[in-house]
Amino acid sequence: MDKHKRQFDEQLDSLKQQLLRMATIAETMIDLSIRSLVDRDLSLLEKINAFEAELNSLQIAVDETAMALMATQQPVAIDLRFIFAATRINSECERIGDLAINIMDNVQTLVEQPELKPLIDIPRMAEIARKMVTDALDAFVKEDPMLAQGVLLTDDQVDNLRDQVMRELLTYMLADPRTIERAMALVFVARHIERIADHATNIAEDVIYMIQAKDVRHYKQRRLGENP
Amino acid sequence: MDKHKRQFDEQLDSLKQQLLRMATIAETMIDLSIRSLVDRDLSLLEKINAFEAELNSLQIAVDETAMALMATQQPVAIDLRFIFAATRINSECERIGDLAINIMDNVQTLVEQPELKPLIDIPRMAEIARKMVTDALDAFVKEDPMLAQGVLLTDDQVDNLRDQVMRELLTYMLADPRTIERAMALVFVARHIERIADHATNIAEDVIYMIQAKDVRHYKQRRLGENP
Repeated sequence: MDKHKRQFDEQLDSLKQQLLRMATIAETMIDLSIRSLVDRDLSLLEKINAFEAELNSLQIAVDETAMALMATQQPVAIDLRFIFAATRINSECERIGDLAINIMDNVQTLVEQPELKPLIDIPRMAEIARKMVTDALDAFVKEDPMLAQGVLLTDDQVDNLRDQVMRELLTYMLADPRTIERAMALVFVARHIERIADHATNIAEDVIYMIQAKDVRHYKQRRLGENP
Repeated sequence: MDKHKRQFDEQLDSLKQQLLRMATIAETMIDLSIRSLVDRDLSLLEKINAFEAELNSLQIAVDETAMALMATQQPVAIDLRFIFAATRINSECERIGDLAINIMDNVQTLVEQPELKPLIDIPRMAEIARKMVTDALDAFVKEDPMLAQGVLLTDDQVDNLRDQVMRELLTYMLADPRTIERAMALVFVARHIERIADHATNIAEDVIYMIQAKDVRHYKQRRLGENP
């Protein structure tokens, strides 16, 4: 292997490490925000904000690395698709972090008032969404299309739980208007988790495209015949 | 100008035209969804779905063109940043279309029940968000960083209107539980519009990066000192 090629491989590997770090941060932010929610504990906020700052810096660093690689190495085929996927996964991880911050905004509303109900389904939703993020990044690193496909299939579980959560919270609101503000905050939390799962789905689609050069986006829609 | 360079410029121009078409579709989808909402008219749904299908196809086409350009032309500097921006703006436009579809889901809930209130602020929010999309794409095509900066500044107006809408709808819900379902649907519409404005902001940031090779993402945060 010549020196130039070895150097290129090292740069690709460093890009991969940066993305893994971003994913780890995003996953930790999900965990911390849900722990804050369940424990009604705002003391984790500072930690979450610090992670977000790191995520933002990494996002810029990954884009810069990717642009430099494209400009100097002129990659083709799988290497080009890898770098392209990296710039996209990058944004998805950063947005997952933003959603953990959004969850914290709702936690702040919730801790100001008495607990509405013990939370079961929302932490379960978050657990599934978090695993989707882990698996999607794992699929990227291991270049494993089957694992990525698994992530796409799991998204329905999150949507079903979300529907269940929404129905239950609506029942609370209808029964007692004093619960409305708290129930709304929980509705928003459920929506944020749903969007985390959507970002994991986007990553999984990018991974499949990278490996198979096959675009699976909008596949579900086409399969369901929603669009001609 | 040699033939190779001329061909490259033509390909870049075709990419630009595809993105402009995507933006036009996304803007039209916003208009149609808000018109459906205000007029309580579901007859536009079919049209909106057809536009979404077109947007999805264009998204894949733009990515393919961009990847082919990167693989065969090995662009550098502004050309590379242009292609990179194109792949990002591409996703943003597609997601704006998705949000118009989300708005339609809520319109379907709303038309099943009596009108809650005449809508003033929500259509105004949508109008501002739509103009942000137009301006962001205009800034991209004209390579105008000042216009892109203007988009970043407008985002606050949308957030302020959203807060106002949320407060008003909460008042309705607290006063009469029978309004809860409809008010919730309108809350979600306001959130979808807010996210459309966020996507326009993302596009504007990409445009500034493309032109000035300066990353303005997370600028607001740093300016406000939210993160160290």
